Amino acid sequence: MVEGEGLLVRKIRSGVVIDHIPPGRAFTMLKALGLLPPRGYRWRIAVVINAESSKLGRKDILKIEGYKPRQRDLEVLGIIAPGATFNVIEDYKVVEKVKLKLPEESQGVLRCPNPTCITRKEREKAVSKMVLVSQDPPAYRCVYCGTTVMGDEIHDLISP
Amino acid sequence: MVEGEGLLVRKIRSGVVIDHIPPGRAFTMLKALGLLPPRGYRWRIAVVINAESSKLGRKDILKIEGYKPRQRDLEVLGIIAPGATFNVIEDYKVVEKVKLKLPEESQGVLRCPNPTCITRKEREKAVSKMVLVSQDPPAYRCVYCGTTVMGDEIHDLISP
Repeated sequence: MVEGEGLLVRKIRSGVVIDHIPPGRAFTMLKALGLLPPRGYRWRIAVVINAESSKLGRKDILKIEGYKPRQRDLEVLGIIAPGATFNVIEDYKVVEKVKLKLPEESQGVLRCPNPTCITRKEREKAVSKMVLVSQDPPAYRCVYCGTTVMGDEIHDLISP
Repeated sequence: MVEGEGLLVRKIRSGVVIDHIPPGRAFTMLKALGLLPPRGYRWRIAVVINAESSKLGRKDILKIEGYKPRQRDLEVLGIIAPGATFNVIEDYKVVEKVKLKLPEESQGVLRCPNPTCITRKEREKAVSKMVLVSQDPPAYRCVYCGTTVMGDEIHDLISP
């Protein structure tokens, strides 16, 4: 676990630890989870940017004390950092460990960027639905209008 | 020093540690220093949000490993978090400790928000100059056009 690397940040009693985040993505994660000020200021959060990593060279680490993950979090975080590890901590122990991955299908989380798409019209109340069409670089296609999004621009399309 | 509180984040060899930051301001500081991605991604940075503090109840802590402070940093950070402590670390020791305060005068760091101010006209090349007119709430007045800014809006006026 994270602590192996010289106790960069102290252990937490309960909450979530996300490790092996590609450098620069920890802030994207905090933003997507709604945990940046002024909105999400309840939790104690530790962020390490550019920690050394034998696997990635450099990585970010994110610890959110007391945070109870919501169902959509794995999908949101998988879109931002596939390959990162998501650990749920209880009483200082890892009780769940998930390797994040790009969701095959995203419903209501990724917005279609096409302003004329039916999912962007408020009156229609159509929930967005994007399907994964490429892993590397990551790309999603809207099932309604066919618009394809890829790379880092995908992160900007995550609904808050 | 920071380490007293249960070794929240490990000690750094050299760089800068900013402690007793009012909660929520660590990100404002990183942004003002140009250390948020994609621009400033060279340093190893640890941010703790909502750490416990006997003095403030809650506080943020910021550690930037290997960072050499620039002259304007104390002014920039003093505007964001007067009362916070700014420590320069060399070989694991604090070699300089400064209590941040609102600068009495800010030249070229705080921009005047008045679009018709002479300091906003590119042709004139007049450097902005704002003077402190109130400590609490903090307020600055432009010496050229008299525009007064106060509170958190001041942070948005820091030149990058």
